[in-house]
Amino acid sequence: MTSRVLGADATVAAFPLGGIGTGNVSVGARGDLRDWELANRPDKGARLPFSFFAIRTARAGAAPTTKVLESRLPGPHEGDQGYDAGRLAGLPRLDDSRMRGEYPILNIDFRDAELGVDVTLTAFTPFVPLDADASGIPGAVLRYRVANPGPDPVLVTIAGSLANPVGITGRDVFHFPTYAGQPVNDWIDEPGLRGIRFGTDLPADDFRFGSAALSTTDASVSAKPQWLAGFWQDGVQVFWDDLRTDGRLDPETEFSLDQPPFPAWFTRLRVGSVAITDELAPGVARDFEFVLTWHFPNRHRAWQGNINLDNTNAGQVVRNHYATLFEDAWAVARHLTGDLAGLESATRAFHGALFGSSLPAEVVDAATANLVVLRSTTCFRLDGGRFAAWEGSFDHSGSCEGTCTHVWNYAQAAAYLFPELERDARRTEFVEETRADGRMNFRANSVFGNAPWDFHPAVDGQLGAVVRLHREWRFSGDDALLKDCWPGVKRAVDYAFSEWDSDGDNVLDSRQHNTYDIEFYGANSLANSMFFAGLAAAAAMAAHLGEDDVAARYRAAAAAGATRMDELLFNGVYYEQRLDDVDERRYQYGTGCLSDQVFGQLLAHLAGLGHVLPADHVRSAVAAVFRHNFRDDLSGHHSVQRTYALNGESGLVLCSWPNGGRPRIPFVYSDEVWTGIEYQVATHLIIEGFLDEGLTIVRAVRDRHDGRRRNPWNEVECGNHYARSLASWGLVVALAGADYDAHSGTLTFRPRLDLDGDVRLPFTTGTGWGELRLAAGPVGAAAAASASVEVALLGGELDLRAVVVDHPRLGRWTSGPVRLLPNTNAQLRTD
Amino acid sequence: MTSRVLGADATVAAFPLGGIGTGNVSVGARGDLRDWELANRPDKGARLPFSFFAIRTARAGAAPTTKVLESRLPGPHEGDQGYDAGRLAGLPRLDDSRMRGEYPILNIDFRDAELGVDVTLTAFTPFVPLDADASGIPGAVLRYRVANPGPDPVLVTIAGSLANPVGITGRDVFHFPTYAGQPVNDWIDEPGLRGIRFGTDLPADDFRFGSAALSTTDASVSAKPQWLAGFWQDGVQVFWDDLRTDGRLDPETEFSLDQPPFPAWFTRLRVGSVAITDELAPGVARDFEFVLTWHFPNRHRAWQGNINLDNTNAGQVVRNHYATLFEDAWAVARHLTGDLAGLESATRAFHGALFGSSLPAEVVDAATANLVVLRSTTCFRLDGGRFAAWEGSFDHSGSCEGTCTHVWNYAQAAAYLFPELERDARRTEFVEETRADGRMNFRANSVFGNAPWDFHPAVDGQLGAVVRLHREWRFSGDDALLKDCWPGVKRAVDYAFSEWDSDGDNVLDSRQHNTYDIEFYGANSLANSMFFAGLAAAAAMAAHLGEDDVAARYRAAAAAGATRMDELLFNGVYYEQRLDDVDERRYQYGTGCLSDQVFGQLLAHLAGLGHVLPADHVRSAVAAVFRHNFRDDLSGHHSVQRTYALNGESGLVLCSWPNGGRPRIPFVYSDEVWTGIEYQVATHLIIEGFLDEGLTIVRAVRDRHDGRRRNPWNEVECGNHYARSLASWGLVVALAGADYDAHSGTLTFRPRLDLDGDVRLPFTTGTGWGELRLAAGPVGAAAAASASVEVALLGGELDLRAVVVDHPRLGRWTSGPVRLLPNTNAQLRTD
Repeated sequence: MTSRVLGADATVAAFPLGGIGTGNVSVGARGDLRDWELANRPDKGARLPFSFFAIRTARAGAAPTTKVLESRLPGPHEGDQGYDAGRLAGLPRLDDSRMRGEYPILNIDFRDAELGVDVTLTAFTPFVPLDADASGIPGAVLRYRVANPGPDPVLVTIAGSLANPVGITGRDVFHFPTYAGQPVNDWIDEPGLRGIRFGTDLPADDFRFGSAALSTTDASVSAKPQWLAGFWQDGVQVFWDDLRTDGRLDPETEFSLDQPPFPAWFTRLRVGSVAITDELAPGVARDFEFVLTWHFPNRHRAWQGNINLDNTNAGQVVRNHYATLFEDAWAVARHLTGDLAGLESATRAFHGALFGSSLPAEVVDAATANLVVLRSTTCFRLDGGRFAAWEGSFDHSGSCEGTCTHVWNYAQAAAYLFPELERDARRTEFVEETRADGRMNFRANSVFGNAPWDFHPAVDGQLGAVVRLHREWRFSGDDALLKDCWPGVKRAVDYAFSEWDSDGDNVLDSRQHNTYDIEFYGANSLANSMFFAGLAAAAAMAAHLGEDDVAARYRAAAAAGATRMDELLFNGVYYEQRLDDVDERRYQYGTGCLSDQVFGQLLAHLAGLGHVLPADHVRSAVAAVFRHNFRDDLSGHHSVQRTYALNGESGLVLCSWPNGGRPRIPFVYSDEVWTGIEYQVATHLIIEGFLDEGLTIVRAVRDRHDGRRRNPWNEVECGNHYARSLASWGLVVALAGADYDAHSGTLTFRPRLDLDGDVRLPFTTGTGWGELRLAAGPVGAAAAASASVEVALLGGELDLRAVVVDHPRLGRWTSGPVRLLPNTNAQLRTD
Repeated sequence: MTSRVLGADATVAAFPLGGIGTGNVSVGARGDLRDWELANRPDKGARLPFSFFAIRTARAGAAPTTKVLESRLPGPHEGDQGYDAGRLAGLPRLDDSRMRGEYPILNIDFRDAELGVDVTLTAFTPFVPLDADASGIPGAVLRYRVANPGPDPVLVTIAGSLANPVGITGRDVFHFPTYAGQPVNDWIDEPGLRGIRFGTDLPADDFRFGSAALSTTDASVSAKPQWLAGFWQDGVQVFWDDLRTDGRLDPETEFSLDQPPFPAWFTRLRVGSVAITDELAPGVARDFEFVLTWHFPNRHRAWQGNINLDNTNAGQVVRNHYATLFEDAWAVARHLTGDLAGLESATRAFHGALFGSSLPAEVVDAATANLVVLRSTTCFRLDGGRFAAWEGSFDHSGSCEGTCTHVWNYAQAAAYLFPELERDARRTEFVEETRADGRMNFRANSVFGNAPWDFHPAVDGQLGAVVRLHREWRFSGDDALLKDCWPGVKRAVDYAFSEWDSDGDNVLDSRQHNTYDIEFYGANSLANSMFFAGLAAAAAMAAHLGEDDVAARYRAAAAAGATRMDELLFNGVYYEQRLDDVDERRYQYGTGCLSDQVFGQLLAHLAGLGHVLPADHVRSAVAAVFRHNFRDDLSGHHSVQRTYALNGESGLVLCSWPNGGRPRIPFVYSDEVWTGIEYQVATHLIIEGFLDEGLTIVRAVRDRHDGRRRNPWNEVECGNHYARSLASWGLVVALAGADYDAHSGTLTFRPRLDLDGDVRLPFTTGTGWGELRLAAGPVGAAAAASASVEVALLGGELDLRAVVVDHPRLGRWTSGPVRLLPNTNAQLRTD
């Protein structure tokens, strides 16, 4: 797989802009702005009328060309009013476009035979590893670079138009937005920044209150801050004619050509445009840069989700974290433009560390594309920085509220890139959501101060949280976090013994609710691998806290349980579920080969806990998962469940029954294909040495997301931007084999790729991030003599006692204590 | 254009089943059931979960094959839960399909390498010209023909499944329907008919009350009348396994595998399946025939539309006309199956008269495809047979209520195929909606007994209604209709003199609201051609009623006005709008070349009124419309309005300014492309002798509706299934040159096609319909000696005093008095 290049036929490709917890607007493959989701809820498909960029070019003596700065609409052209007026489908567009989306940076090359200039769009929202605030700016840079390849000067205008997005309540039958309050557009011209502030007359504590801004630091500006309002489309006709005429916009002198008084139903739509105009000499290129920012401060203090957790405080306002940092969208624009050099430099460094790395392209694609989840409507941060997340985003509402422990169990990206978010989630889980008896509410309602959820505990989510606390604590060295969580951890772990192990054999076997939204009964290796991983994690943390007796008890239980489970469940090839009658209860899997069967072991690996099950059986099990559950061609697959892969596509099903024994009604997702599980299995395959198999799965996932069938930046499960897909970052960790232990101050690499030439592999730690750089000879050559190995820091800082690289061919390289700052390196020596 | 054949990539093709005023369910190009619009409102995109057909085939000794009887889903595969469970996208489907939709008959050929049999679907709702009741059955036949081409017997099952569609209130986040009341499925087995009746426990006067039935006359039936209900998808898993196992369905013995008591939110979804099973010997073919019927009797007694006419009686129930003919959906099934032979025979005769005719394929395509409008949610009939219609159908509500006179002005299909509907509309317009002062409410609210609309009268709609009354009266000989309407006609015509002709020169020139939803000022030929046509029509009717003075006055005014208008507006090439300053008021066209500029003349032609404007100027004008307004390639077109044609597509714009003078803000639809106007212009071009130009426009329209870009059976303007597209039937009338005058008892043909060989041209009259059949020698040969000419009746009856054929080459052929019954002919003799 080479870098993904999408043509205008990639109709479902949508590259989201926006920061952590800010909402999004996306850019389609044609360069169109789509999916306006700025106002604290998902809204896939939401359009803003008349919100687009246009270009006008004029050479002396030739007729000017004015077009919408998008490539043509490929169809279907269906719509109950054709294309409604707000879409401006009847204006000329460019011949073609090529989208290269390398998250977090988007580039689109436009092609047009008439323009006479070359145009490229670069768009991004700053993304700075380890800095959630810098990565949480509600806005984006939209930079059009125009080059004049011809022999004559060309006068170029690029004009951006935006409909005021504040206060939208819905859409009328003509597809125009309806508003609460009256949107208000204001022109602002201050030193170094000018543009339109889109506000409202709604009170500041209204849930729909907010602002947006379309601005530029460019001095060559003209504007029409507010188009003519009217019952018909006078505004757009006059705007377009104004732009076409001379490429410079004039403010309107009238509010409307309709006669006052205006009826109550008169349009509240307020559109404004900002244009940058300059003459480009032959051979010259120039940026036409716009900044789009927004600010919708007020959330309901409740999930208001489909699981119907207590919503008592829904009528209260809670502010978004970003709203505590910026007064309004104009302040965001000031910040984003003022700090742009540094923010862009860090963003490009991160982009380069991934897309310039030696990781397989499909891994870079999978790992980066799903970072979108963290900056989608799935995640948000409340006043005080509290992190909270849905499982995913339905098209128009959040999906399954409460930072679900058993779904987020699979997520790796935040832990390694924005660990403060995961630390906050652990604190919520163990300090607030673990009851006195050790039962953890697997959907957090404490973030809103509403009553806790009353439902079964989730065995995988609850015990996985213990492993993940170990991951967060080890990566950060945050002993305060551990101390705060520890009582909850002990209660949560002890709950497993008392509630899930009916016969005291250290193997969980009673009613075990889990991520398949049903209860498994009897011994199964999903719950128990998680149990043993949780015990290992808890033992390590207990030891650190000096509770050696607890540590010993947990370690002993883990060892005994693992031995017992192996006897009970290992069938010589993989682990089964132990049930006398698989059909006594619905929704079991019995003799099936479960893709998640050793998921707990993977979490243990990533958390630095090593094997909690017999290594050879784990290796056999993950190989069996690939062999039985990965399908090259799903045409013959029979699934009456939800469908994420079909026809001739490839994918990993959740379960199969290679030896027969399929229950009459197996668990309700058993025939489905989930990308999050595909990634956890692929990661585990790579760790266990099955590199080709792991990469085969990753390619299958990403091939399905080709922009024509599915959006590359949206892996869906129960909702868009589904949290489980954040498992894909595990691939990066596994391939570099990077492991950071804040307590020992050691950074270790065990690369699972062996490549020749100059090799670059990204890594992160709790305080800094960078690259492992190898200069290696040809694969097959053993000699380390001519090699070189170094660790380069690209962001943050890093104080290490030791660096160790265990290379499969170059051998062991080390460094003693070193303190790294950005753009400094540690050279390693071969042992 | 050959017969339209659509592959599975025709993702927006949807062939609607259903009768006049009954709502629809459509069949997609893959053979899928889609767009469930049964319950008295549009609902494009509405899906019913688990509602599909499946096939199982088994040869002795071979593994059986079970698949969804649809071709594969081509993508995009987006969805916020992938494909939700109700869509069953994870089941195997057939390799491919080919849809041949020849309205009203649909055929789909399926292809699959594994099935071992050949399968074709034929689907239709009976369509009987001149019989609105027989064409208004709320149901459809779905007939799968299976042939066994192999050497071995094959056991074949086809199973139809349907989710109870009664009482649906919306969809939950999982895309499952929510219900008012509890749907109830009942198995009915009565002599000759068995199947599932889908009912409800809602009271019979509830607006959502209704029923549906999936039934068959086949005796080889098994069924699962109600799938297992449950929180999860037990029902479909057990159904699918049951079908796969032996191809015969067993009724469930339990209601649910979940444990009672069931919570209030427990699913109300009730799915049922009916299967037909038979063994096919080698070489044998057999029909597997299902009948799908429905019955949603209760409408609100109000439009409840977007124009917000008075809705005082909305809380009252008014029954659909069809509900007065059938007790419920089961009664519909009895009727449809009981009378199927006759209904199908008439339907096939009509289909054959069009698709077997000598009309150009694009004309047959355009004329038949838009008949869907009459049987879509756009049209309905109330208790007592009253006809009423929206302009079109928004995706989820009617568009622009009140059988709008200025939109329906363009429609020709109902007048020639179901003239009772148009007669009823005229009665509404002139008896109920024309006020004492002659102002006609151009949106009827009297059909519901609500208060009349208070708005400007529409000059084109009001005067066009006079022409159309003449058309209806002449076609039917219905003097009672004329007598009832006549006082209103006089008031409506006299209103034009008093209100729209400011200076008494018989040319309308004051504020003239019209079909572009704005007011024209000053003299224009759209309003005035309609005025002169209306005067000619009114004069003819006055003469018939013995009011010779009135007739003379109207004739004189028409003649004087036409002369005066010609002086004022004809610019040597076409007719302009007369304004001193085109920008004094918005939304005018001035010197523009308006596509509708002689629309009144076309209506006069079709109503048998001849020229009301100078023939040579009319000919010049329609030629100019084609020359200036038809665009081969719209890529360079600048329109900020709604968009119905774009990119490299061809189309006829509503107006252009070939001589300059475009207003700053021309009328609000001036740059749009409307199929209804394209058809009226094409019809007029053909009548004026520009056959190639007319057909060029028709091809452009239909090429745009290719199933990939747009649905062939849905021409959209302000809403789906837009009434103006019914103008396309005018092409059939114009090409055959058929003209029927009930009063003189004459049927005249002036064919505007000159073809060799056996020529067949369809015609209708008020009482019977059939074909003109010519056996003609090679084009270019003058001799009529070897020719033969006959008129064959295919339906109804016809009592004629004279038949005349004026053939451009074969000359004049005639017959004296003849009485025709179905399948009898009248032989004509050359003069």
